[in-house]
Amino acid sequence: MEKNAIVGQSGGPTSVINSSLAGVFQACSMRGAPRVYGMLNGVQGLLEERVCDLTERLSSYMDIELLKRTPSSFLGSCRYKLPEPDEDESVYIKLFGILEKLGIGYFFYIGGNDSMDTIGKLSEYGKRTGSDIRFIGVPKTIDNDLMLTDHTPGFGSAAKYIGVVMKEIIRDATVYGNRFVTIVEVMGRNAGWLTASAALARGEDCEGADLICLPEIPFHIDRFLEKVERMQKEKQSVVIAVSEGVKLPDGRFVCELSDDHRTKDAFGHINLTGTARYLSNLVARNMPTRSRAVELSILQRCGAHISSRTDITEAFQVGGAAAKAAFEGKTAMMVALDRLSDDPYQCTTKLVDIKEVANYEKKVPVEWINEQRTDMTQEFLSYARPLIQAELTPIFINGLTQHIVGV
Amino acid sequence: MEKNAIVGQSGGPTSVINSSLAGVFQACSMRGAPRVYGMLNGVQGLLEERVCDLTERLSSYMDIELLKRTPSSFLGSCRYKLPEPDEDESVYIKLFGILEKLGIGYFFYIGGNDSMDTIGKLSEYGKRTGSDIRFIGVPKTIDNDLMLTDHTPGFGSAAKYIGVVMKEIIRDATVYGNRFVTIVEVMGRNAGWLTASAALARGEDCEGADLICLPEIPFHIDRFLEKVERMQKEKQSVVIAVSEGVKLPDGRFVCELSDDHRTKDAFGHINLTGTARYLSNLVARNMPTRSRAVELSILQRCGAHISSRTDITEAFQVGGAAAKAAFEGKTAMMVALDRLSDDPYQCTTKLVDIKEVANYEKKVPVEWINEQRTDMTQEFLSYARPLIQAELTPIFINGLTQHIVGV
Repeated sequence: MEKNAIVGQSGGPTSVINSSLAGVFQACSMRGAPRVYGMLNGVQGLLEERVCDLTERLSSYMDIELLKRTPSSFLGSCRYKLPEPDEDESVYIKLFGILEKLGIGYFFYIGGNDSMDTIGKLSEYGKRTGSDIRFIGVPKTIDNDLMLTDHTPGFGSAAKYIGVVMKEIIRDATVYGNRFVTIVEVMGRNAGWLTASAALARGEDCEGADLICLPEIPFHIDRFLEKVERMQKEKQSVVIAVSEGVKLPDGRFVCELSDDHRTKDAFGHINLTGTARYLSNLVARNMPTRSRAVELSILQRCGAHISSRTDITEAFQVGGAAAKAAFEGKTAMMVALDRLSDDPYQCTTKLVDIKEVANYEKKVPVEWINEQRTDMTQEFLSYARPLIQAELTPIFINGLTQHIVGV
Repeated sequence: MEKNAIVGQSGGPTSVINSSLAGVFQACSMRGAPRVYGMLNGVQGLLEERVCDLTERLSSYMDIELLKRTPSSFLGSCRYKLPEPDEDESVYIKLFGILEKLGIGYFFYIGGNDSMDTIGKLSEYGKRTGSDIRFIGVPKTIDNDLMLTDHTPGFGSAAKYIGVVMKEIIRDATVYGNRFVTIVEVMGRNAGWLTASAALARGEDCEGADLICLPEIPFHIDRFLEKVERMQKEKQSVVIAVSEGVKLPDGRFVCELSDDHRTKDAFGHINLTGTARYLSNLVARNMPTRSRAVELSILQRCGAHISSRTDITEAFQVGGAAAKAAFEGKTAMMVALDRLSDDPYQCTTKLVDIKEVANYEKKVPVEWINEQRTDMTQEFLSYARPLIQAELTPIFINGLTQHIVGV
């Protein structure tokens, strides 16, 4: 009798993380897994035995189609980091006990760096204790900061969202013909892939962003103000894309300079947004111009109504490839995307050693930023442009995009 | 020889204001106007004789299709208010001189309250001085606050955007299964139509917004905090839509309580955003929960990639109806939308006296807000739902929505 499979989602949501879930589910079902279970809220929920039976829940093709179009994690997520087995083996004993009870032979975890760390630890512990469960990681993150994969599912849709709305913001900002500085804040704490995607907006119908500031390049407040002043002499409406993660030369985040940064919630969590607002206020105080801050906020990761079809398809494929690998006996691996060519764009999947992925961050190559540190080079555009191609028409009911929910 | 026509756009941009421009242009051309001119930056630009020749610029059907899909004002906008003729006649003498030089017989102005004021003053002055130019107003505003029209072109697309992204935000906010309060700030200084549209998100696949706060209802900070605390006892993730214009019982805007409000730019303009951020910080300081503020910002008025086809079509129709009226000899009128029925939705156009429109604001009827002041009633949903129906597929080039620019 074939074993069952289990799949979980972890870390921040994306627009296409559920497409990977659909890919894992469909491939496991087709390969004969009697049951495919879903962990609710990842490994954290699994430890509380909170699982659902996806084989029952996803019974129609329409469910799969809706899953591909539903943002955020269908199964819920967590930010749980497993302890080292030497520190606390009890967690592992409990987890493997639950997996045994469910008859699991295949374990999939869709996520970013921390999730690959989880796959690494579980497969290592499994090997040591003679378990025959196979553990495969499925990459996902809008941040595109995973090693050994050409790019990550989730990035293409976020980049497409950023390109589309940058064009709309640039149109909006020119309307009065007045001096105006718009500062758009984009996600990405340490890697600037998303902010760099603002460069995609430029084309025959759009003048593009005037300045792009990535966390890979130290941020000098005085030079920034000089640049803005110089740009506005040539152009009334200046539009700037800035990463939430830009840092001063001394290593502090720019947003740490703002008042708002100091507000804490009842748990003592510090609020780390406000980069664009801080810079916008600074511009308005220092130059005779109006200025506005726009935070793209969570919509850049959950704006599934404008996903990239390339991204949705690849997210589905990495899920399927993970199932194939596990059923063929592989373990301790992550599925990676392997680009064969930019134009025509061709991309396939491969398997990489989980240990070489976990806990490293891939940054934007500095050579892909122009010499003046204002824009991206053609290399970046050739890399990113294929990932935002094509659309998967949303299913509209009652005028709004339809989702699948209710695990 | 038939006279020429001129058209201008004024006030804040919307996703469909260019569809009205296309409607005016196409109907004037078909009725035999040799030239259709566009004012650059509205009446303010016209006073500087900055006009363009739309008959040359919009020469293909593809131009018209792109115009329907391009957000923000193709001709540029202004926030210029004409003086009273008795105060300063020189402005009128200059304007009518320029119109005569261009051979204008038909004058169209697409905008909100202030633009209708402009049409009112110009037609009044024209009548007094025996001019035969006809002046017709074309309604536009995302705020939906114009009198005597069932709704305004621009509102439906903004409402659709808000409905779609509220659903995505609600999905995103539930993902960790933790206590979480998300406060979404929606535009609308005095009228709550846009914030009310958050109510459209609720459906079989979405639990909807938990609390909706309109500027029509005085905002009590203490009662707000009590409501949030009570709601979170039943539900971990609470999502709230709040108007940027909510006011305390003493008449001050809630955002005036925030620090950020006090920052001014070099012109002394006060920044009036920050309502959601202020409330989110307040929630986080007063309860054991995380909280996040999301400002929908300008994307709710320029997110043309997810426009309502009903709205685009009606925007085009009011433009065409304006041209028809002018060519049939009408003046000092605004085209209004006249709803015949909700279900099936049927709507036509009519003409209303410009003097009865200008300078009044239409608010959300208080009876359309539930007794607990937390949500909208079925009356509002029946009113708003037809306006967000259907889509006009964007034209994607290189993975991004294509626009038309370059006047």
